[in-house]
Amino acid sequence: MNNINYPSKVKIVDVGPRDGLQNESANIALKDKIALVENLANAGVSMVETGSFVSPKWVPQMADSAAVFSGISRKPGVIYSALTPNMQGFEAAITAGADEVAIFAAASESFSQKNINCSIEESLTRFAPIMAAAKSQGIRVRGYVSCVLGCPYEGDISPQSVLAVSQKLLNMGCYEVSLGDTIGVGTPAKTSALLALLLSHLPAEKLAVHFHDTYGQALANILAALQQGIAVVDSSVAGLGGCPYAKGASGNVASEDVVYMLQGMGIETGINLDALVDAGFAITQALGRENQSKVARAMLAKRS
Amino acid sequence: MNNINYPSKVKIVDVGPRDGLQNESANIALKDKIALVENLANAGVSMVETGSFVSPKWVPQMADSAAVFSGISRKPGVIYSALTPNMQGFEAAITAGADEVAIFAAASESFSQKNINCSIEESLTRFAPIMAAAKSQGIRVRGYVSCVLGCPYEGDISPQSVLAVSQKLLNMGCYEVSLGDTIGVGTPAKTSALLALLLSHLPAEKLAVHFHDTYGQALANILAALQQGIAVVDSSVAGLGGCPYAKGASGNVASEDVVYMLQGMGIETGINLDALVDAGFAITQALGRENQSKVARAMLAKRS
Repeated sequence: MNNINYPSKVKIVDVGPRDGLQNESANIALKDKIALVENLANAGVSMVETGSFVSPKWVPQMADSAAVFSGISRKPGVIYSALTPNMQGFEAAITAGADEVAIFAAASESFSQKNINCSIEESLTRFAPIMAAAKSQGIRVRGYVSCVLGCPYEGDISPQSVLAVSQKLLNMGCYEVSLGDTIGVGTPAKTSALLALLLSHLPAEKLAVHFHDTYGQALANILAALQQGIAVVDSSVAGLGGCPYAKGASGNVASEDVVYMLQGMGIETGINLDALVDAGFAITQALGRENQSKVARAMLAKRS
Repeated sequence: MNNINYPSKVKIVDVGPRDGLQNESANIALKDKIALVENLANAGVSMVETGSFVSPKWVPQMADSAAVFSGISRKPGVIYSALTPNMQGFEAAITAGADEVAIFAAASESFSQKNINCSIEESLTRFAPIMAAAKSQGIRVRGYVSCVLGCPYEGDISPQSVLAVSQKLLNMGCYEVSLGDTIGVGTPAKTSALLALLLSHLPAEKLAVHFHDTYGQALANILAALQQGIAVVDSSVAGLGGCPYAKGASGNVASEDVVYMLQGMGIETGINLDALVDAGFAITQALGRENQSKVARAMLAKRS
């Protein structure tokens, strides 16, 4: 146990402006979205998932993503990415100035059918034109895999299914696959077992983890992932977001809590925790909702 | 990493009725306290910290601990314990029917002075009569050490100080020492480093961990402790309690979240999670406060 080699650096991908805000019920002003993205970049977050280019009929919260991209002052070196479900979305994202795009597939057939109305295989085929266009334009593509530790319809998901879809996304040209515990049911032993299988086929540098904190397990799961060499973690400032499968439950793990843990372990993130807490405070004030980060609550309580 | 030996069983000590409720501002009816203790025992918690026998001037929330002890229906095999700061408290606890008592000391001189107005050494000397009386009456005594990973006045605390006071408590006759991260500032690497030192001098069977979730780190720290063989964990149903050093911040780690993690890891606790969630729901309704357990919030959301 004392011989565990933790990574010396971890990259935080803050998904709050996209995965977070798209699961908030409040109507959020464009200026607040722009401020959130800028505040995250200024706090030292090197990759900010800034918006998504999906039909506003499906996700009205993201209807103004192009305006967010055109409204932000960019910080050099920061990657502003966008989720793109199809070619139309990809083209809109590139026109808006997205540095990178992300595509997604599920590790669960039932989730794929219910969420995007096609099989896993079909969903991957649909992304082929994006991969080709991205390649020709020199745009990097990140892949998300959802339901890696459980599915709201199927329950347990076999690690083999996660491996299969992860390999396909990487073979299609994704530079990295982010493993999403979409409903936050995973525990550390399951996380370790999943990663043990994946890492026997894929290098750790190709994998990121994306935990939701629905059952409070996210930080423990991240710790288990770090112990296996994973060095890219998705999180959401102030724990923005929620769980569409359990109303009132928590959403994404809070970036502040992840950064506090990493700093306390001597792992470099490049992030200024005070500034990150400020970014979360501003958006929770704008949303009129409680800050879901325990670190933020404790630090804000101490300040006042 | 995949060779980590987790304990096959973990004992949960639910400290909600004492450490939890004494940090709640609400005035709690005796019947609600009794129901809480009974519900925890019925859920399968084998040790319930039921009250404390301390001057009601200091801790008015615990003024009716004797009535709680006399009011509960006892479940065979369950240990109902009490915190006792002095001989008067010890005698009252035994008269009330406490199965076990707990004494406490700090790993921080400043905390000891500010909290109980004497040095660490003096505080231990004051407990000598309790140890003698407990021994002659065949009562087991548990020792708490506070501030093991940080102090609100001194900041960092050296692991050597924690070792010194833990050894003294065990030498005085405590059967176990519970290591308290009183202000919840610890992170997994610090937890591992502290335990590595302690375990080079003390057997794991003599140690328990008691984490507060002020900075959201408790489950990750518990995972680190399990990885070093610790098999007794203090927690508080519904995350009852708060942090007197950061108003509005979280208190004890929620028992439900700990049990969910352990069950997901195949570690036996003897606890029925649904019944535990019910126990937490009942007391949070009585208190009129939000349930701090994410597992409880997710499970209650799914039920409704």
